[in-house]
Amino acid sequence: MSAKRSPGTRSGRRPGNVDTRAAILDAARARFAEAGFDKTSIRAVAADAQVDPALVHHYFGTKQQLFAAVVEFPVDPEPVLSIIDSAPLDELGSAIVRAVIGVWDSPAGPGIVAMGRSVLTGDADLARTFFLKVVLERVRARIARPDDDGHARVSLAVAQMLGVFVARKVICVEPLASMPLDAVVAAVGPSMQRYLTGQIDASPTT
Amino acid sequence: MSAKRSPGTRSGRRPGNVDTRAAILDAARARFAEAGFDKTSIRAVAADAQVDPALVHHYFGTKQQLFAAVVEFPVDPEPVLSIIDSAPLDELGSAIVRAVIGVWDSPAGPGIVAMGRSVLTGDADLARTFFLKVVLERVRARIARPDDDGHARVSLAVAQMLGVFVARKVICVEPLASMPLDAVVAAVGPSMQRYLTGQIDASPTT
Repeated sequence: MSAKRSPGTRSGRRPGNVDTRAAILDAARARFAEAGFDKTSIRAVAADAQVDPALVHHYFGTKQQLFAAVVEFPVDPEPVLSIIDSAPLDELGSAIVRAVIGVWDSPAGPGIVAMGRSVLTGDADLARTFFLKVVLERVRARIARPDDDGHARVSLAVAQMLGVFVARKVICVEPLASMPLDAVVAAVGPSMQRYLTGQIDASPTT
Repeated sequence: MSAKRSPGTRSGRRPGNVDTRAAILDAARARFAEAGFDKTSIRAVAADAQVDPALVHHYFGTKQQLFAAVVEFPVDPEPVLSIIDSAPLDELGSAIVRAVIGVWDSPAGPGIVAMGRSVLTGDADLARTFFLKVVLERVRARIARPDDDGHARVSLAVAQMLGVFVARKVICVEPLASMPLDAVVAAVGPSMQRYLTGQIDASPTT
């Protein structure tokens, strides 16, 4: 479901129109900023905006997608996030590299780069939260094990992808900046895989 | 040799004083900006500043160190760069991670982070050039082989370190941001080693 999907039904409380969509976004922006991502519910946003929760879902999809709309994330993150859930665990590293770089190199790329720069300069706290809460939590949930909650692994994996992002899209370190996608996947995928599921501490290999 | 070392001798052409040092820096800044790092020589900078080349070396050391002074690099890069030359090739990845993060976590760290932010926002082209020309070329020369000039490897390694820098020092992704140095070395060192000397393409392992 895209954040820009036009309403096909109407709510009981407010007509489904542009003002309603804007009211939901305003309410969500205030809630997320005040209470944070975890403590904000679709129900609370709907109450603030005086609409039915179903209308929030109808316009924006999941809480993650509502958040993406609030931070004006330039692309629907759901297709990429769904890859995190569907890729085989032993191919997750390469799958993430391929999906994420595919988005950077898409028509939405310039918007992502602009947002990335804002995050890097500290001008986009909500977008930063979006990365850390929504995206990373989804990855962490996928790789968590009884003896390893995955937090350290995810922070290492995000460092890897941030570095490829900065080198490829922000300061343009060649030849990585121009490297074909397949070559980047071959080079970076195994490192990502190691961070996500391989040995990352100094203990002897068993 | 530090850029702040006070002169112990005097040149024949100009007295070795604060003005001379400033004149050399001005000449170097103009040369580096106009001709780039590679095409700028100590001799040319000395001629522009109307001093003897030996005085430039005396004040600033190598061309790399002169460049570091021009971009107001907050720490003498030579101790880190010398590690690139002296570490065993099969331990280069961990050695670089340990040395570089050691500098970030040192008293010079805040200055490095400030400069890093400027590079990320495109406000520090000379500093960017410093990274790409001086630092990376030194690494590339170390790992180059007859069948592999090392350019792709270095760009992947710099992406890895940029990512750790951004995650640890700029947007503070936990737990990586607070991870002890030894743990970061254990986690990131093997990835760096792979980028520098391991298999990075998709061809079958031999």
